[in-house]
Amino acid sequence: MKEIAKGKLLIISGPSGVGKSTILKEIFARRKNLYFSVSATTRPPREGETDGVHYHFLSVEKFQEWIADHNFLEYAEYVGDFYGTPKKYAYEAMDAGRDVILDIEIQGAEQVKKSCPEAVSVFIAPPDWNELKRRLSERGTDSPEKIQKRLLRAKVEFQSAGMYDYLLINDDLKESVKKLDAIITAEHCRTKELLKYDLIREMDEL
Amino acid sequence: MKEIAKGKLLIISGPSGVGKSTILKEIFARRKNLYFSVSATTRPPREGETDGVHYHFLSVEKFQEWIADHNFLEYAEYVGDFYGTPKKYAYEAMDAGRDVILDIEIQGAEQVKKSCPEAVSVFIAPPDWNELKRRLSERGTDSPEKIQKRLLRAKVEFQSAGMYDYLLINDDLKESVKKLDAIITAEHCRTKELLKYDLIREMDEL
Repeated sequence: MKEIAKGKLLIISGPSGVGKSTILKEIFARRKNLYFSVSATTRPPREGETDGVHYHFLSVEKFQEWIADHNFLEYAEYVGDFYGTPKKYAYEAMDAGRDVILDIEIQGAEQVKKSCPEAVSVFIAPPDWNELKRRLSERGTDSPEKIQKRLLRAKVEFQSAGMYDYLLINDDLKESVKKLDAIITAEHCRTKELLKYDLIREMDEL
Repeated sequence: MKEIAKGKLLIISGPSGVGKSTILKEIFARRKNLYFSVSATTRPPREGETDGVHYHFLSVEKFQEWIADHNFLEYAEYVGDFYGTPKKYAYEAMDAGRDVILDIEIQGAEQVKKSCPEAVSVFIAPPDWNELKRRLSERGTDSPEKIQKRLLRAKVEFQSAGMYDYLLINDDLKESVKKLDAIITAEHCRTKELLKYDLIREMDEL
């Protein structure tokens, strides 16, 4: 019996400052089979941003067309611009046997779970709130008021963590990467996915 | 936020000849935190068998008492003798933070899932039926007729594999051990288990 080729859709969410980017960087280094879903946006490209790499840059008309054609797994408006996860690239990657990582927020995760219930969702949380506050302060990019806002947002987000399949408490980067790696491996062993395959067809040949 | 101490109940099933004992031996070498559930039986001890190590040897009366006291996670009769999984030792081990391995058959697995729905179940299957036939023949312990019986039994068992959470296709020992290891790690990251804990209580302290 052959391993099935089809990849998995993995939703990764977590508050600003939780260490999500670092975990993702490490997991991409570890699993060569991963595909990072590039978002589409109506926001104009900033200097140094390349179309198809940082974002798929779309006109508002094109974005509306994609919505009408059901080309998004999820989309939302943020500070006057639209952002969305294109369905096409994700499904192509999965058909090619690659696991697709969606780095999206909670509202997006809810939409994806609706249109694709077999998606696996992981919420990355800080070991505690003071640690998150410390990390946000350490970055030195935000004012105390902005940090307080981010913390409040993180708390609000965390109230939705229950809708996620897995919760990663990021108190140790190496451990978190190992756990995320294990989650992906384990999800590929799910019975409901594997049972469709060869072993049953072979039953009658015995 | 501290990792929770409570262990998991892991059901492992699979047909004779599939390589289950070898996988279990390897996973016990890898994870020091595992506890192997020793069965109770009314069968008299054979030479070299130690009470509490190979089995908990009980009289028929004692076994009946344990049934009446709901001391079994599951029990069954097999060729005139009774076999059961004691609840007490498994729960003590879980309370001490150890993951408990139950090496039991499908009927037992069904009983355990009923009394303990949070148990995680893994079915180990052969890569294909001819491979299982080859392995059973290679052991040289069974007559061709007995091998045929075992194969038929394996087919019957496999029809119940759908009730298991995970399916491990054992085509490579090292890979199978790695997958089982990943399944245990991943199950400890399940949101529904973790969300009971500290992070929520800490919310108001922010």
